[in-house]
Amino acid sequence: MSNERFLAYYRLSGGKHEAFRKAKDICLEQTVEFPEELVPAGFIRDHVVGRIESFRKTGKDACEARISYACDTTGGELTQLLNVLFGNISIKPGIRLERFTLPKKLLKGFEGPRYGVPGLRRMFKAPRRPLLCTAIKPMGLPASKLAELTFLFGMGGIDIIKDDHGLADQPFASFRERVRLCTRAAREASRRTGRPCVYAPNVTASHPQMVERALFAWREGAGALLLSPGLAGYGIVPYLSCATHLPILAHPAFLGTYVLDPSSGISHHALFGQIARMAGADASIFPNFGGRFSFSKQDCRSIAEGCTDRMGPWNPIFPAPGGGMSLSRVPEMLKFYGQDVLFLIGGGLFKDGPDITANARRFREMVGG
Amino acid sequence: MSNERFLAYYRLSGGKHEAFRKAKDICLEQTVEFPEELVPAGFIRDHVVGRIESFRKTGKDACEARISYACDTTGGELTQLLNVLFGNISIKPGIRLERFTLPKKLLKGFEGPRYGVPGLRRMFKAPRRPLLCTAIKPMGLPASKLAELTFLFGMGGIDIIKDDHGLADQPFASFRERVRLCTRAAREASRRTGRPCVYAPNVTASHPQMVERALFAWREGAGALLLSPGLAGYGIVPYLSCATHLPILAHPAFLGTYVLDPSSGISHHALFGQIARMAGADASIFPNFGGRFSFSKQDCRSIAEGCTDRMGPWNPIFPAPGGGMSLSRVPEMLKFYGQDVLFLIGGGLFKDGPDITANARRFREMVGG
Repeated sequence: MSNERFLAYYRLSGGKHEAFRKAKDICLEQTVEFPEELVPAGFIRDHVVGRIESFRKTGKDACEARISYACDTTGGELTQLLNVLFGNISIKPGIRLERFTLPKKLLKGFEGPRYGVPGLRRMFKAPRRPLLCTAIKPMGLPASKLAELTFLFGMGGIDIIKDDHGLADQPFASFRERVRLCTRAAREASRRTGRPCVYAPNVTASHPQMVERALFAWREGAGALLLSPGLAGYGIVPYLSCATHLPILAHPAFLGTYVLDPSSGISHHALFGQIARMAGADASIFPNFGGRFSFSKQDCRSIAEGCTDRMGPWNPIFPAPGGGMSLSRVPEMLKFYGQDVLFLIGGGLFKDGPDITANARRFREMVGG
Repeated sequence: MSNERFLAYYRLSGGKHEAFRKAKDICLEQTVEFPEELVPAGFIRDHVVGRIESFRKTGKDACEARISYACDTTGGELTQLLNVLFGNISIKPGIRLERFTLPKKLLKGFEGPRYGVPGLRRMFKAPRRPLLCTAIKPMGLPASKLAELTFLFGMGGIDIIKDDHGLADQPFASFRERVRLCTRAAREASRRTGRPCVYAPNVTASHPQMVERALFAWREGAGALLLSPGLAGYGIVPYLSCATHLPILAHPAFLGTYVLDPSSGISHHALFGQIARMAGADASIFPNFGGRFSFSKQDCRSIAEGCTDRMGPWNPIFPAPGGGMSLSRVPEMLKFYGQDVLFLIGGGLFKDGPDITANARRFREMVGG
């Protein structure tokens, strides 16, 4: 057992008195889940129960509590760490997990991102420029059509051509057929252009299909995996990364509710930045500001920081803004995100005219590729 | 491919005009994720895209849309069904998934609960009375102490003695030692009382540890499994049920945010009722009204209905209200839930005096056991 502790920062709604009561409640709820008066004195009360390390008023109706927990409460496990950070208190209104910091010992127990920014830059021979990603769609096309799109995007110089996150194993385009044809199409485009280009199938599924699909994709030569941790669970990410050595793109499906209400849930920074990275994603997809979702510039900035701020020995990962983007937005996004970004333009690349290879090429030229 | 469709009911914020725009947006966002004008005519536009089946104003600032999706969009898979129901639109404010209905063909593709109410009633030789559950705690106790508690609760006639959901594989009480000692303790209590009594370890973990722990628990003779789908993913539930044939108790940790804001997320009914049941949980734990959480009577009623309303061939499952309950609340809860309920009293059973076997016995007597 160890004395080390990690820190979680919570935004608590209410005046000082009410918010402090919430902070004290979190200390019990997230650890011993036991009436305070019955918590055994000594080790459990002093060490296992959460501890308020600081508390301050941050606004008219909000306070911030910094609460430390014994690293031992997590058992060194991702799912239990998430549980200590936000398990039961997810059910209580007026508590938002803003961010967390982990001591080295705890960080080391998680693999973190296998590639992240430096690894993907090497893989795509792109030492400086942003990486480019698009999605094959719409659902309902046969696998052969999706493979054709993959090829056309690849010829235009897109680095990662991913499944739309709703492509699973539907009768329109079964997983295996799609993966066979699309990996081949990406490889062929790469051979012709002389540039790396990979296909990233969506492997989100139930157990054990998710593992089977990831391994199948790896054997067929897919170059990355797309998955939605909100549906698949975060706990599968390190395993898939380890089993396939493929880069992982995390998709935000089913997770949005956590960030919508600024007084509860989990912050953009922690959810799409820190947690995605901790689980081992190499890029974290999220809806860009000004698209068809509602994230603000500040939300997006905080995600990018969660992806790239120093976090022990872990590589920074690519923030991957998408969701209703178009080529016309690229200059603004370049200015906002800088070079360490993976641009995801899906439907928008189709909108720019019928020649999608030409559209993709323009995309590539805009980022200096 | 089939023409069958399933139905989702959404609550949409805003006046008629705004809400109808949201409904139209959902039809695209949840399926083709493609600009409307580019959706190919014919099969994809007519069949794959969601369809507004009805739309009505339900309040001053709210409407209800009934949207149908092709069953084929789900590929017959749990994770993809959840994705179609609420994946990307989780990121959009003012949309709440209220409930859904699945045609027989789609229902049949999911196992549903293996035991549910009739199966657990047989298992615990309790043809009519509510089932009783408690939790061993607090975190920080060694395995031997947790086993002692298991035994004492078992002697008092508790049916299911579960891990506190925060017990994982911590150094205080490793998973394997805890499971070995607690299964033995429950068995010994059962032998002495002549009544069925089982221990339910928490198997929530990352992959592949979760499967390993469930199988270990099964081999050691555990009688049920506890897991938190918000951390583990729903897609593991059918597998664990199938691999161990043990009843599954679903815990709400990390899921609370979905239900907190009545204008977004997922309804109590759909999340803790329908979805838990669809995934194959045999009992769904949730915080009772009037405890240390904030669910209303109506919320709890709607969960109980989601657990027990007719849903194709699936067994009803036990609603399992808990969270700050005490013996004094039992008569009120009996009146509210009737007999088809699994009462979960954790910390509250410790509060009633130092003899926890006596407390458990009183609990049992109160439900007519």
